[in-house]
Amino acid sequence: MKVKWMLDVLGRDYQWVEVDIMSGGSRTPEFLLLNPFGQVPTLVLEDGRALAQSNAILLHLGEGTAWIPGDAWERAKMLEWLFWEQYSHEPYVAVARFQRVYAGKTAEEVEPRLIERGNVALARMEAGLVGGGWLAGGEGATLADLALVAYTRVADEGGFDLSVYPSIRDWISRAEAAFGIK
Amino acid sequence: MKVKWMLDVLGRDYQWVEVDIMSGGSRTPEFLLLNPFGQVPTLVLEDGRALAQSNAILLHLGEGTAWIPGDAWERAKMLEWLFWEQYSHEPYVAVARFQRVYAGKTAEEVEPRLIERGNVALARMEAGLVGGGWLAGGEGATLADLALVAYTRVADEGGFDLSVYPSIRDWISRAEAAFGIK
Repeated sequence: MKVKWMLDVLGRDYQWVEVDIMSGGSRTPEFLLLNPFGQVPTLVLEDGRALAQSNAILLHLGEGTAWIPGDAWERAKMLEWLFWEQYSHEPYVAVARFQRVYAGKTAEEVEPRLIERGNVALARMEAGLVGGGWLAGGEGATLADLALVAYTRVADEGGFDLSVYPSIRDWISRAEAAFGIK
Repeated sequence: MKVKWMLDVLGRDYQWVEVDIMSGGSRTPEFLLLNPFGQVPTLVLEDGRALAQSNAILLHLGEGTAWIPGDAWERAKMLEWLFWEQYSHEPYVAVARFQRVYAGKTAEEVEPRLIERGNVALARMEAGLVGGGWLAGGEGATLADLALVAYTRVADEGGFDLSVYPSIRDWISRAEAAFGIK
């Protein structure tokens, strides 16, 4: 969804193609030819070139826009959060939700390690958001906020209790407003 | 190590501080104050500002150098590999090696899933490197090659057989030469 929101906020024309990963849609020969990584989302340009990795897509689409800070240090902090999202947030917060919402597991069936590590990630975000402000530390929202709000806003669907993270909840509202997420 | 190699290839002055993660060195109050993510490597500037996430550090250090392509598409493909490294390569190739080399596990004690997924990652790299060339697809090595060569060149220590990946082996030699890795 973050790629879709990015295209929307930039006012770019695009065609949205659903790929059903539960029925092997990202493992068909046609899809693998387009994206050998076999992962969604995939951005396909009009000339057929394809780009994988959601955060690489955001950075590519965001070049030259205010969503990437002009200040080198703020840009570095934005990248720090983007890589952290892939390594320390998505594998727990998003995967727990995947198990509940898509794989049909009950709260008891979700691996406890996912909830434990997911809460470590959420606590890290809470600490970074105390007092308001944005993840990269500058005056405005950046791609770090877009990338992290995607699964954080629906973390409750994975079994996480966001009521214990007031700064995150405040930030979710602000990030949704900044990127026009409904 | 990739951060150290980057500093070396750029000829930057730095002080290298070993942090023993096996004895909790990245969980001390002092370290967490510096880097709340509690992860190595951490880049600390002279004024005390600190940056985590190895690939964010490489991108920050590499700004304005030839290790980041000037072409927007090649830059996007470099970023695609950098994010993929953190999500689909390091958690298997590096973690299997960690279990063998640092945690003292035998080949039989390493989770089979790590070897299986690690080989999926290596096969993906092999496919991208057939015929020579560099990961981002341009004329020269980029940060994608530096980031991925770090654990790929020692993958055998984790139990991976690199002899079945001839294009990777050729690329390792070329990447080591390009970045002055001994």
